[in-house]
Amino acid sequence: MDYHNIFSDIAIELQAMENLGAVASYIPELQNVDSQKFGIHLSTIDKQDYSYGDSNDKISIQSIAKVLALTLAFVLEKDNLWNRVGVEPSGSPFNSLIQLEYEKGIPRNPFINAGALVICDILVSRLSRPEQEFLEFTRAVSGNAHINYGSRVAESERLTSYRNAAHLNLMKAYGNIRNDIDTVLDFYCHLCSIEMTCKELAQGFLYLASNGVNPFTGQRVIGESEAKRINAIMQLCGFYDEAGEFAFTVGLPGKSGVGGGIIAIHPGNYSIAVWSPKLNNKGNSYRGMRILEFFTTRTQSSIF
Amino acid sequence: MDYHNIFSDIAIELQAMENLGAVASYIPELQNVDSQKFGIHLSTIDKQDYSYGDSNDKISIQSIAKVLALTLAFVLEKDNLWNRVGVEPSGSPFNSLIQLEYEKGIPRNPFINAGALVICDILVSRLSRPEQEFLEFTRAVSGNAHINYGSRVAESERLTSYRNAAHLNLMKAYGNIRNDIDTVLDFYCHLCSIEMTCKELAQGFLYLASNGVNPFTGQRVIGESEAKRINAIMQLCGFYDEAGEFAFTVGLPGKSGVGGGIIAIHPGNYSIAVWSPKLNNKGNSYRGMRILEFFTTRTQSSIF
Amino acid sequence: MDYHNIFSDIAIELQAMENLGAVASYIPELQNVDSQKFGIHLSTIDKQDYSYGDSNDKISIQSIAKVLALTLAFVLEKDNLWNRVGVEPSGSPFNSLIQLEYEKGIPRNPFINAGALVICDILVSRLSRPEQEFLEFTRAVSGNAHINYGSRVAESERLTSYRNAAHLNLMKAYGNIRNDIDTVLDFYCHLCSIEMTCKELAQGFLYLASNGVNPFTGQRVIGESEAKRINAIMQLCGFYDEAGEFAFTVGLPGKSGVGGGIIAIHPGNYSIAVWSPKLNNKGNSYRGMRILEFFTTRTQSSIF
Amino acid sequence: MDYHNIFSDIAIELQAMENLGAVASYIPELQNVDSQKFGIHLSTIDKQDYSYGDSNDKISIQSIAKVLALTLAFVLEKDNLWNRVGVEPSGSPFNSLIQLEYEKGIPRNPFINAGALVICDILVSRLSRPEQEFLEFTRAVSGNAHINYGSRVAESERLTSYRNAAHLNLMKAYGNIRNDIDTVLDFYCHLCSIEMTCKELAQGFLYLASNGVNPFTGQRVIGESEAKRINAIMQLCGFYDEAGEFAFTVGLPGKSGVGGGIIAIHPGNYSIAVWSPKLNNKGNSYRGMRILEFFTTRTQSSIF
Repeated sequence: MDYHNIFSDIAIELQAMENLGAVASYIPELQNVDSQKFGIHLSTIDKQDYSYGDSNDKISIQSIAKVLALTLAFVLEKDNLWNRVGVEPSGSPFNSLIQLEYEKGIPRNPFINAGALVICDILVSRLSRPEQEFLEFTRAVSGNAHINYGSRVAESERLTSYRNAAHLNLMKAYGNIRNDIDTVLDFYCHLCSIEMTCKELAQGFLYLASNGVNPFTGQRVIGESEAKRINAIMQLCGFYDEAGEFAFTVGLPGKSGVGGGIIAIHPGNYSIAVWSPKLNNKGNSYRGMRILEFFTTRTQSSIF
Repeated sequence: MDYHNIFSDIAIELQAMENLGAVASYIPELQNVDSQKFGIHLSTIDKQDYSYGDSNDKISIQSIAKVLALTLAFVLEKDNLWNRVGVEPSGSPFNSLIQLEYEKGIPRNPFINAGALVICDILVSRLSRPEQEFLEFTRAVSGNAHINYGSRVAESERLTSYRNAAHLNLMKAYGNIRNDIDTVLDFYCHLCSIEMTCKELAQGFLYLASNGVNPFTGQRVIGESEAKRINAIMQLCGFYDEAGEFAFTVGLPGKSGVGGGIIAIHPGNYSIAVWSPKLNNKGNSYRGMRILEFFTTRTQSSIF
Repeated sequence: MDYHNIFSDIAIELQAMENLGAVASYIPELQNVDSQKFGIHLSTIDKQDYSYGDSNDKISIQSIAKVLALTLAFVLEKDNLWNRVGVEPSGSPFNSLIQLEYEKGIPRNPFINAGALVICDILVSRLSRPEQEFLEFTRAVSGNAHINYGSRVAESERLTSYRNAAHLNLMKAYGNIRNDIDTVLDFYCHLCSIEMTCKELAQGFLYLASNGVNPFTGQRVIGESEAKRINAIMQLCGFYDEAGEFAFTVGLPGKSGVGGGIIAIHPGNYSIAVWSPKLNNKGNSYRGMRILEFFTTRTQSSIF
Repeated sequence: MDYHNIFSDIAIELQAMENLGAVASYIPELQNVDSQKFGIHLSTIDKQDYSYGDSNDKISIQSIAKVLALTLAFVLEKDNLWNRVGVEPSGSPFNSLIQLEYEKGIPRNPFINAGALVICDILVSRLSRPEQEFLEFTRAVSGNAHINYGSRVAESERLTSYRNAAHLNLMKAYGNIRNDIDTVLDFYCHLCSIEMTCKELAQGFLYLASNGVNPFTGQRVIGESEAKRINAIMQLCGFYDEAGEFAFTVGLPGKSGVGGGIIAIHPGNYSIAVWSPKLNNKGNSYRGMRILEFFTTRTQSSIF
């Protein structure tokens, strides 16, 4: 398919639309990004690559890293994982403590913050040098040795993460956090600070489109059934309380981050990463969602 | 694919498992069903049919009818529909009033009871003889002139639907119900009482697997994009607070009913209806979910 | 004490303040009241009366009638009453369905709408001609044979009480309503429509200040201990989610109604009724609360 | 009144009743208390003292200290205090985070944990050596220089206070905590560890029964109006989600602690402290509530 042509059509449509929303402002490193930028990169399972716009800019992947953390924890824990975190959509904003209290410290799914913090606690228990080993895993998955944490973002985030500390403390009160709270929180802030380009994201997450194997490296990241399950969780829970809207308009499993990035997967076909810094009022990239909506409509590639 | 062989393997696996859960007991008509029965029917978009077990028993389709009601309302209202009902998973049991109150009378999605009641209100406004016209629509969609309401089930249900009346009254207080409450409730209870066999269900819902056209009759039921959107909503909201579990283990859009039936769709391929009366504690058919899990695992046909 | 002097000082202070808030507008009969009117009447247990302003205007007592309904139900049911309704403050607006759902159809207290509806259901079960007998009880308690329902208010209210119907249906689903929903709702709307002047209110509720006996008629309305308990419930639950504010600023047990009336009790001393139609955003009379705050501050008669 | 006689009658009644409930078990220091002990001490505003049972045993006063903290913060902040904490009952368990999230970090009242933590934050801001100055205040209020913190209790409590840390972090996310979280939490745990006998409690809190002045020392602790307001808050919020039950059965403003102590106030008359270690399922002393119910019934001294 002539993806470049489609991408440039999309760019024309974007020009005609207002660039609504606001860049994430709770830490200076995220706020100081040029809000007019946008990038697209698509990688197919037969290793074709299609780029458009600012697809080689490094972005802070933020919550998109939760998918990598889930992947590693799933490899290490197998189905024991589901004793400590659920697979149901939350029906609430990403950072609500309410559901967590009603459900006695078991987070709804691994993509709300509470769930990702439990995943981090598991990784801290399992890994001897969590930050280094997680970075190595991310590099291996992506076949890219140059991926790094964004240290300043991690530090800034650490200074303002009172709500995440509230989640950790509440879950610790219920016995669902095993390690020291500051250690888990540091690790979590590092994860979220990983910097990748759209190209690196699309290539790095391609294992989810190809039954758990990265076509670029030929290495199995995770089992076939487990890859499908991660896609299912992304479909239902990857966009907080806009998951239905994303399924409805885009029709692919995906995960967004407050840096403005989105990764989406068409199982058996491709992965696509898009980026535009301005977020809608649900915390998802405004233009990113529009780009993907145009794209799956044009290519008729919704999984539904 | 040799579906008959797969079905008989599944039947052997079912024999080895306990038949857990309980038949719906709130009305006598549902309670008096033989809990050992089960049926499977698969219809492909190239009009192949595969049956197993009690697939020609008439069952009360209950909430599965909500998909038909949504289809008809979507045809009539187009995207105006979404002003009165959302597309997000509820994260709560199917009949919770709590979310409805927080969200000022706009139900989360068309498959929780409140949402289906709004859909019924819309149909009552739009149709001159709602019960008759809805039955005609169902018959036309299915290409089957013998489908009928189960009048005794409808009457029994009507006598115990205080919680649905609570939903209707609350939404009326917020201005999201336009017609007389008793009229809407009668219509809703009729819808849920429709009786179909697994074969009729699979054939009747095949339009969702084939871009909105029923392959048996050749008639377009709904637009292609709209069919995809209904599948997306089923994926995210079709199993109440077990939607994640169903996506995770089965990996298809689907909808269950308290009569023990489940319809699931593999877009571009097939529709499958299963039935077994005992329900798990979330109100979904216990064996029905196991059958579909075995089936998509064996056939590797999860959409993820 | 020179109450007349205090009342005229209060009137001067009211002149200096804006008359904030809004008259209840959901039915025409309540909306068409002159919002500048206000009345005060105080009756002491030694049968002294002090009036000020529009204290002989008939007002729709609305939720103040819930105190009379509770009194009669308590007389008839004794402590069995507390199996069907609690005595705890709700911490939520007066008409929230949320708590009712979490607490399985047992309302928090007899003064939120759900609780008053349970009380009405009990009275409908206990009385052979509920409306007539309740009116007789109210007349006997007050020593005033001229008290009547406001039929037009009752009818208007009945036409808009969808939210109360939602409460009744939800409680019926939980088994906590025994009678026909329309019958209970009619009875409830009648109760709320009772018309009394400030003078009639103060005299009629004086039994709560004098250990259960009306000093004007000499008749025992309810036991001494039961009268104290009703005062305790009024203190904690009489002002919906402004109960703390009323205790804090006024310091007396009391009950408000959306007609703008408030009755307050100083046990062992007096009852006082005030009226001013404009309501604050919690649904309590704006000036009524100010009048009582000035009054208990001036007379140092908070019970605390 | 012959209080000694009444107390011994109560003791006989207690013998006839089972000693239900369970001693607080989350820290060893509280668990190792003899559960059969109980003490009563009453002090009148004319400086009469009446003791019974183990009224000279030191107990860990726990949440009763919240009343002292509120008193000091109210003296220092005046009505500015109410910008940061409300005066409404919570309608929820004492440690719920849910309400705190809905109400954007403003706790319902100063006696739920979140509210007491805000009070501690205010005191940490206002005092140069918070722990020492608060102890001096407590000693001055009580006219007793021998009152001390229970250091081991404070340390044990500090090690398990994840839920309180969750509250602090959540409120800090909303901007309602100004100081370092560990500092505030240390201070809070110290407060709760204060050790006093029933006699010291009754004498120490007598200022609330006598318009803000301690009759034993003659010193004004707080203004008259402020003392009434603290009593009002105790009445509505002093027993978590059993406040209604306590008002209903006992009829006095009061405050309980998980050490099994309760202080209650009869404004203008007396203060009474009771102690018995076993707690009911709401976290209030089982026998303590019974003792006070018998006492106010026998002496007819409910404020209602």
